[in-house]
Amino acid sequence: MPRYQAIIAYDGTNYSGFQSQDNGNTVQAELEKTISKLNGNQRTIIYGSGRTDAGVHAWGQVIHFDLEHGRDVEKIRHAFDTQTPADISVRSVAEVHPEFHARYHAVEKTYHYHLDIGKPKNVFKRHFAAYQPYPLDVSKMEAALPALIGTHDFTSFCATGTMIENKVRTIHEATISYLGPDELLFTFRGDGFLYKMVRILVGTLIKIGRGQIEPEAMAQMIAAEDREAAGPTAHPQGLYLMEVKYE
Amino acid sequence: MPRYQAIIAYDGTNYSGFQSQDNGNTVQAELEKTISKLNGNQRTIIYGSGRTDAGVHAWGQVIHFDLEHGRDVEKIRHAFDTQTPADISVRSVAEVHPEFHARYHAVEKTYHYHLDIGKPKNVFKRHFAAYQPYPLDVSKMEAALPALIGTHDFTSFCATGTMIENKVRTIHEATISYLGPDELLFTFRGDGFLYKMVRILVGTLIKIGRGQIEPEAMAQMIAAEDREAAGPTAHPQGLYLMEVKYE
Repeated sequence: MPRYQAIIAYDGTNYSGFQSQDNGNTVQAELEKTISKLNGNQRTIIYGSGRTDAGVHAWGQVIHFDLEHGRDVEKIRHAFDTQTPADISVRSVAEVHPEFHARYHAVEKTYHYHLDIGKPKNVFKRHFAAYQPYPLDVSKMEAALPALIGTHDFTSFCATGTMIENKVRTIHEATISYLGPDELLFTFRGDGFLYKMVRILVGTLIKIGRGQIEPEAMAQMIAAEDREAAGPTAHPQGLYLMEVKYE
Repeated sequence: MPRYQAIIAYDGTNYSGFQSQDNGNTVQAELEKTISKLNGNQRTIIYGSGRTDAGVHAWGQVIHFDLEHGRDVEKIRHAFDTQTPADISVRSVAEVHPEFHARYHAVEKTYHYHLDIGKPKNVFKRHFAAYQPYPLDVSKMEAALPALIGTHDFTSFCATGTMIENKVRTIHEATISYLGPDELLFTFRGDGFLYKMVRILVGTLIKIGRGQIEPEAMAQMIAAEDREAAGPTAHPQGLYLMEVKYE
């Protein structure tokens, strides 16, 4: 059976996540419903590069699936895209090696986090950026970023309750830029991210920007290997899975 | 009684318009509910600079209202803003002359229209831009713009059934620009716009961009003074009332 990879964008506002333990409305369930129809009404499983939480968005989620019969990839993309709900879009489809795995073969992920810092809150961004009403010292936040780069045990930045044992990850890039005067964009690129790691990084950086934690404390927070040492988890609606890379 | 002017932004997705004839959910009704509470539970009327249709957005809608007692404008703004629903924002409040009228004293309005021209459709823009899947020749659309500038009878670009007699309006500015490779921004600035006029202008310009109407026909369409002469009405979700100016 030929295997396909697809790049998926979704507005996560109305989903309980890409995939979820409970019986909520998930992106994966919507994708499986549609692809099963296109695969001769055979139950077809979708594998994603990883989960995203309720309210989190994706521009470049990668999935794979197998079809009974090979078809033109643009035809698959078009049928798949037009039959999914309006808040899910199938950006591209490609045939891949039959052993390609969207999750296990991922070598790098990029996340964006959007923060609305305008006054008042921008109504058009309420589902697409987190809101931060207090003044932020962006230079302090930037001063904390170099400590993140490289290979570290990120236990302090992983939500408790996860079953993953190895919490060592490598961050290649961590930057903050302005998207106009009223919005900040955080970019994180690394070999992988732990459960809620990007949101905890942003929540901690916001505390630094507000002057509640010194930038120099970032290295100590990492070294503590204790979730209690880091800041709070930032809201989900600012987070976007932008890109997943493979070997 | 002191009179106040406020600048209001709203995501029009879930409203049947700013103000509507039917009994739908309107922005005006939400604003009146909130301001009446802040005015000692006295029924307080909100006057807008004009109506916007269902699904149409505003960044700079201007309203006026009277309060029983004068108060600090930033306190009014904050109370008003925090008590309106999340899709309505009160950007500023100022005390004005007791005879100021948000509708009758407006001398200029600016509208934006956002068109998603990417492939596939951007899921994050589905309520905030109209979608146009067919290739557009933007230079042809731009060639049709100069004919709009100046004072004309815009009967051809006014939805039928309106009670307004005088359909002469002056357009000061009409431009098209790119917001990145996948989005077009139309800007229209003039002394006033007729019912659905901006959407009919955009619908006609899209026909020109698709090669179905020649740019040179714009002047004739205006001269015809007949709604049948112009193109279709573009979708509401691309339209934003950006700014209203007063003498």
